[in-house]
Amino acid sequence: MWNLHLVCHACGQEFPPTHRAPLCTACGGPLDAVYHTPPRFQEERGPGIWRWRAAFPIAHDMPLISLGEGNTPVLTLERAGEAAGCPHLLAKLEYLNPTGSFKDRGSAVLLTVLKALGVQRLLEDSSGNAGASISAYAARGGMQAVIYVPDTAPRAKVQQIRVYGAQVRVVPGGRQGAAQEVRRAWERGEGVYASHSLSPFFLEGMKSFILEVFTQIGDDMPEHIVFPVGNGSLLVGTWLGLLILKQGGHIARFPRLHAVQSARVRPIVAAWQEREWRPRPGTRTVAGGIAVSNPPRKAQILQALWETGGQAVAVAEADILAWQKVLAQGEGICCEPTSAAAFAGVERLCAQGVIQRGEKVLVPVTGFGLKDRLPRG
Amino acid sequence: MWNLHLVCHACGQEFPPTHRAPLCTACGGPLDAVYHTPPRFQEERGPGIWRWRAAFPIAHDMPLISLGEGNTPVLTLERAGEAAGCPHLLAKLEYLNPTGSFKDRGSAVLLTVLKALGVQRLLEDSSGNAGASISAYAARGGMQAVIYVPDTAPRAKVQQIRVYGAQVRVVPGGRQGAAQEVRRAWERGEGVYASHSLSPFFLEGMKSFILEVFTQIGDDMPEHIVFPVGNGSLLVGTWLGLLILKQGGHIARFPRLHAVQSARVRPIVAAWQEREWRPRPGTRTVAGGIAVSNPPRKAQILQALWETGGQAVAVAEADILAWQKVLAQGEGICCEPTSAAAFAGVERLCAQGVIQRGEKVLVPVTGFGLKDRLPRG
Repeated sequence: MWNLHLVCHACGQEFPPTHRAPLCTACGGPLDAVYHTPPRFQEERGPGIWRWRAAFPIAHDMPLISLGEGNTPVLTLERAGEAAGCPHLLAKLEYLNPTGSFKDRGSAVLLTVLKALGVQRLLEDSSGNAGASISAYAARGGMQAVIYVPDTAPRAKVQQIRVYGAQVRVVPGGRQGAAQEVRRAWERGEGVYASHSLSPFFLEGMKSFILEVFTQIGDDMPEHIVFPVGNGSLLVGTWLGLLILKQGGHIARFPRLHAVQSARVRPIVAAWQEREWRPRPGTRTVAGGIAVSNPPRKAQILQALWETGGQAVAVAEADILAWQKVLAQGEGICCEPTSAAAFAGVERLCAQGVIQRGEKVLVPVTGFGLKDRLPRG
Repeated sequence: MWNLHLVCHACGQEFPPTHRAPLCTACGGPLDAVYHTPPRFQEERGPGIWRWRAAFPIAHDMPLISLGEGNTPVLTLERAGEAAGCPHLLAKLEYLNPTGSFKDRGSAVLLTVLKALGVQRLLEDSSGNAGASISAYAARGGMQAVIYVPDTAPRAKVQQIRVYGAQVRVVPGGRQGAAQEVRRAWERGEGVYASHSLSPFFLEGMKSFILEVFTQIGDDMPEHIVFPVGNGSLLVGTWLGLLILKQGGHIARFPRLHAVQSARVRPIVAAWQEREWRPRPGTRTVAGGIAVSNPPRKAQILQALWETGGQAVAVAEADILAWQKVLAQGEGICCEPTSAAAFAGVERLCAQGVIQRGEKVLVPVTGFGLKDRLPRG
C-alpha cells in the first residue's frame, strides 16, 4: 500500500507513513515524504489532479476523497502584463478549485490518506482558506472536522468554514493562540492534527500544480513563477514537482521560483536578505492569507528560491490593493488581496531587472475575491 | 465569417447575424441562431468550451474573449443521492466557472461575437450572476458595461458586478423596472443590449454544457437532467446541444430534461400544468437566481420538456434551504439556494416516481454559495 516513509527535514529522524503526528516527534521539525521508488510524471486516466496519481502517495486501492480539484485554466494577461512590465504574463486561476482556493489540491491528497488510515476526526487551525478546504473535504469524506480559528479571523472566512459542518472553536490570542489550542487538543487525543502548514501529505498534493502547468504549456514553460508566500506550501510543492519533471527528463532547466510577501509580515524576505525581522504585535495586512510570522517550512522555501535562482520581495499594502483592482477591471479576474500581492511582486521584480521584458512569467491566482475584501469598483 | 442567420422563434422573421437587437424587431419574440451548415460535435484543440468551437457561431478568425470557462468537474454524490431517493446522482460543478456561475458559458460566446462586431459599450439588466458575468467578460474584452440592477438586488451581488468595473445603475420598481430602463437606454442608442435572457448568442454558449458532459461521461449518459429554471437558458441550451449530438449519431436517445422552480415564482410549472399563475407583488424566494416571472423563452422551455419527456416541478422554500445544507455538510458542496432548488426537485421527482431508483440523474450546480446567502452551519 505504501511506497514511502516520512523523514524529518531538520534532524533526519525517520517515521512510517502511518505516523499520526504532522511533525517530527523528536525535534518538532517538518516532515517530508521520501519515496522508495521515485515518483514519476506519468499521465493516467482520471479527473483533475488524479491524472498524476503516480506522483502522489496514493495507492490504487485507496478511495479518493475528491471534489473535482485541479484542472484550472491558464490565461494570458496582456493588459496586466503591460502594467507590470512583462508582456508575457500568464495567470493560473487556482481560485477555480472547489472551495475557491488552491488549498484544495493539498486537502484532497491529505484527506484521502487520512481516510485510508481510518481517521474519523480531524483537528486543524486556520483563519481562512485552509480551514474551509479541510472542512469541505472532511464533509465529502464523511469525517468530522474541528477547526480552531483565531478571534481575529474575518467573519466571512469563519462562515465558510462553518458552512461545511465543521465544529469551529474560536480562540483568543490571534493566530498563535489557535495554533497552541489545536496542539493541546491533539495531545489530549481528541483527533488527528490535519495541519495544512505541517502535513507532508498536504504538501504532496501541491505538486499537482506544476505537473498540471507542464501538461498545459509544457512546450513553452515560463522562465519565472511568482508566488504569494505564507506557509509556502504551493512554492515548495512546485519545487518538489519540478524535481520529478527534471528527473524524468521532461524539462531541461527550472523556472525561477520567487516568493512575495507583504512588507508588514515578511519572515521569508527578511531571512533571504539575512536581516532581523520580528512580528510587531497587532500588525495586520490586507493579504491575510500570507500573514504567517513563522512558517514551519522556512528552510525549504529558502532552499527552493536558492536552487532555482529565485528572489524574495516585499510589497506595500497600497500596491496589493491597486493590483487587485487592475486584475478585476483590466482582466475580469476577481481575486483576494493575497493573490494580488504576487502581481505587485511581479511589478517589483520587473523594476529590479530580475524579470526581463521578453521573459515569460506565471502567477497562481490563489483565492477567489468573493472570500475576502473586494476591490472598490 | 458567419455561418448563420437569426430567426424569430415566434413569427419566423429573419435577421442577419449582425442584427443589433437581442430580439425580433417585428414582434418582440426571442431569436434563434439558424446555421446554414449544421453545427457539429467535433472536438478541437482548445481550452474549456472552445473545444467545441464547431458547434458555436464563432469563426476561426475571431479573437476569443475567454476567462477559462467550462471544463467543470462531475462528481458522484452518494449521500445526497440516498437522501433524494436516487443513488445514481451526479453533480456538475458549474460554480467553478470564472465568475462563480454557469452564466460564463453564455457570456464568453456572446462577448466574443460582440467584440468581433466592433461593439464597445454593452447594456444589460440583471440582479445577480448574469450581471457579474457580463461585467467580467466586458473587462476581459476591454469593453465598457453598464448594468441596470433593481433596487431589490442583494448587496453582495451588486458588489460583484461593480468589482469588474461596470457602471451600475440602480433602478426602482424591481426586476421589471430595470428591464424597462435598459430598453430605454438601448433605444436611445446608448449601447448594445447584451441581454443574457434574450441573446441567441448567449444561448449558443450554453450548448457547451451538454457537449462537455458527453465528453466526460458519454459512455454512460444520465437518464435525467434536472435544472433550476429562471430564464431557462441552460435547459434550452442543453436541448440545442442534445440535438447536435443526436443528429451526429453520438447519442441514441435524449436524457429527460426537467425544470425546477420555487413554488413562489413558478411560471413554467404553471404553464406545464396548464394553470393560471400571476406573480404577486413583492413575492420573494430564497432562490433569487430563478425568480423570473415571465421568461421570454417560455415556449422553448416547454418544448424541450415535452420533446424529452421531462417534467416541471415546484419546490418549497424550506426544502431549498434544507438541501443547501445537505449539499454543504454531506458532500462538501457550497452552492446558492437557487442551485439547491434543483436537488429539492430531484427528491420530488423521485417521490412522484418520475425518476426511478435505478436511474442516473445529473444536476448542474449553477452558482457558488459565496455569492449569496450561506446555509447556517
